[in-house]
Amino acid sequence: MKKHNYSAGPCILPQEVFDKSAQAILDFNESGLSILEISHRSKDFVAIMDEARALALELLGLEGKGYQALFLAGGASLEFLMVPYNLMKEGGKAAYLDSGTWASGAIKEAKFFGETVVVASSKDQNYNNIPKGYTVPTDADYFHCTSNNTIFGTQIKDFPSLDMPVVCDMSSDIFSRVLDFTQFDIIYAGAQKNMGPAGTTLVIVKEEILGKSGRTIPSILDYEKHIKAESMYNTPPVFPVYASLLTLQWLKNLGGIAAVEKLNNAKDALLYAEIDRNPLFKGAAAVEDRSNMNATFLLNNPEHAATFDTMWKAAGISGIPGHRSVGGYRASMYNAMPIESVQVLVDVMKELENKV
Amino acid sequence: MKKHNYSAGPCILPQEVFDKSAQAILDFNESGLSILEISHRSKDFVAIMDEARALALELLGLEGKGYQALFLAGGASLEFLMVPYNLMKEGGKAAYLDSGTWASGAIKEAKFFGETVVVASSKDQNYNNIPKGYTVPTDADYFHCTSNNTIFGTQIKDFPSLDMPVVCDMSSDIFSRVLDFTQFDIIYAGAQKNMGPAGTTLVIVKEEILGKSGRTIPSILDYEKHIKAESMYNTPPVFPVYASLLTLQWLKNLGGIAAVEKLNNAKDALLYAEIDRNPLFKGAAAVEDRSNMNATFLLNNPEHAATFDTMWKAAGISGIPGHRSVGGYRASMYNAMPIESVQVLVDVMKELENKV
Repeated sequence: MKKHNYSAGPCILPQEVFDKSAQAILDFNESGLSILEISHRSKDFVAIMDEARALALELLGLEGKGYQALFLAGGASLEFLMVPYNLMKEGGKAAYLDSGTWASGAIKEAKFFGETVVVASSKDQNYNNIPKGYTVPTDADYFHCTSNNTIFGTQIKDFPSLDMPVVCDMSSDIFSRVLDFTQFDIIYAGAQKNMGPAGTTLVIVKEEILGKSGRTIPSILDYEKHIKAESMYNTPPVFPVYASLLTLQWLKNLGGIAAVEKLNNAKDALLYAEIDRNPLFKGAAAVEDRSNMNATFLLNNPEHAATFDTMWKAAGISGIPGHRSVGGYRASMYNAMPIESVQVLVDVMKELENKV
Repeated sequence: MKKHNYSAGPCILPQEVFDKSAQAILDFNESGLSILEISHRSKDFVAIMDEARALALELLGLEGKGYQALFLAGGASLEFLMVPYNLMKEGGKAAYLDSGTWASGAIKEAKFFGETVVVASSKDQNYNNIPKGYTVPTDADYFHCTSNNTIFGTQIKDFPSLDMPVVCDMSSDIFSRVLDFTQFDIIYAGAQKNMGPAGTTLVIVKEEILGKSGRTIPSILDYEKHIKAESMYNTPPVFPVYASLLTLQWLKNLGGIAAVEKLNNAKDALLYAEIDRNPLFKGAAAVEDRSNMNATFLLNNPEHAATFDTMWKAAGISGIPGHRSVGGYRASMYNAMPIESVQVLVDVMKELENKV
C-alpha cells in the first residue's frame, strides 16, 4: 500500500519523479547506459545540469536578473560555512535572525569567521514564533534568515527591506509560495523537501555581491569558482541533480509556483482548520507565523496519544511524529503531497474526537 | 544495446546495483515508500548507513583497528580542504606528493592553511610516472598522496613508511587491489568509481590522529563531529549511500577485494598486452607505474584515429577518449567492468591492425 508520507525531509516527491528516475537508472534516454554510470562531462548530463540551473531561475522569476543557480553538494549545512566565507569581510560583521535549530546552526558557523550579531531570537519561546520588530545593524556585511523552520512549524511571512545583501535559507519551503525573490541576494536550499532527493543543494547567487569580502577563499567553498565552472567545479551529485530536474519539470508543468501555492493553501487551510476546530488538538506555533509546509500540533490530553497513533498508522499515514524538541505531531505537506492525504489525516483526527 | 562503458567516472557499476536501486526507488523493501522519500532518521536508513560504514571497514580489513568510516557529501574535493583543516597545526606543515591533476588540486587547497611541501612532482613529464626516491620532512604534520591518477593512468605500487599520519586519496582505485590498509591514517574516495554513483565520499579515519591540530574547525568540516554523529551530522546523500551499500554488498558476495583483484589483474593483463604487442599503439604511462584501473594509450599514427573511433563506436564501446591533457585513449576498467568488455576492445584494436 502506498503511504501518506508526512516525512519532514527527505520527503514525498511526485510519483512521476520516482517512475522516471527508476527508468533512467535502468536505461537513461535509451542510451544503453544507466544515469548512474554516465560521465558528468557527457553531453547528456551537461544538458541536465544546464536545464536544472535555468529552470530553477525561471520558476523563481530570476531569469536575466543577474542571478546564477548552482547545484552543489554538501547540504545546506555547508552553505552555513560558504555564506560567511564569501560575504563576511575580514573584521566585518554579519547579522542573523535566530528563528530555529537550523538558523542557530548557521549562526554557530558564522561566528567562526567574525562578529555575528543575532538581531533577535525566539529561542526562549522554544522557537514557536518568528521574531519581529528587530533592528539590523546598518554596517553588517549581510543579513541571514531562515524562511521556514521545519522543526517548529513557523515561517517568515514578511522579509525585512535592507541596504545589504539578504541571504535566506529556504531549504524547507522553496518553490512553495509566491514571493518577490529579487529581494534576496543568496537563496540556498537542500533539495530534500520540495526539490528532489537528498544529495544536492540549490544555491542562487546574485553575482554582483561576490568578490567583495577581501578574503582568500578555499576553491571548493568559493561561489565564483563554482559559477565559472558552470556548477561542475568537481563531480556533481549526478543522480540527485537529475531527480531534482524531474521535480522542477513537474512543477513547471503544474503551472509553477503560483499554481502549487494554491494547492498548498488548500491543504494548509484544511489541516489548520481541523487543528483549531477539534477540541482534542492545539497548534504548536503562533498562528500568524504558521508554516505552509510543516504544521506542528499537540494533543491537549497526552493520554490520547496511544489511540491516535494506532489510528493514523492504520490509515497508512507515516512520518507524522513531531520532532523531539517540540513533541506532539508534525504534518509536513510539501508540494508533492496530495490534498487527499491531508483529508485522510483530518478524517482520523475527527474519528479520534468521536471515539474518546 | 547495453554499452561497454569505459567512462573514467562516474562509471560502470554492477547490473544488480542498477536493478536493485531502481526497484528501491519504486518501492523500498516493500515499505510502500520510495528510497527517495524516506527520512534519513528512519530505522531503515539508519540500518543502511550503519551497514555501509561497517562493510567498508570490513572489506578493507580495518574492522576493530581504531578506524571509523564516514559517508560524507561534497566530493573528494571537499576532503582536500577537510584534511588540512583537521590535521595541519597552526604554523605547522604538510607534505604532499604531486602525481597528477587531483594531487595538485589537493596541494592548492592545503597551501591555503599553511606551509605545504611538495616532496616530488612528475608534472614536468606530464605526470606520466609516479615520482620515487623523495624525502618527506620528518616534522610534517602528515603526508598526502593520491594512489591512482585517473587522468594519466598511473598508480602508486609502494607507499612510503613514515612516522606521521599518511593520508591517501583513493578515489579511483579503492577496493580494487589488496593493500595493507593499516598503513594509512586517512583514506578518502569519491564514490563514483568502484563504490557507487556520484554524490557521496567515503572517508576512513584513524580516530587517534584527530583533535591534535589545535585549530578551531567549522562544524561541517570537523571529522570528529561527523564521527560523533555517526555520519549523520546533517542530512546525508541518502540514495548515493544506498547505491554504494549495494555495490559493497556485490563486492563482498564476489569474495571481496582479493577476488576482484584477480579479475582486475586479468583485465589489465589482457589490455596492456595488446597495447604493448600491437604496433599501432603505445602506452602513455611509465610501464612500472601503470594503473590497474585506467589504461592510457595512444595511436602511433594519429591518422588512424578516425578509423579506430568509428570501429570502437560500432562495437558498442563508450567513454574511451583520453582526457584532453593526455590525448589518445583511456580505458577505465573499474571493478564492475567484465573481462568480456575488455576483449571487445582488444578485438577492435587487432581489427584495426589488420585493416590499416
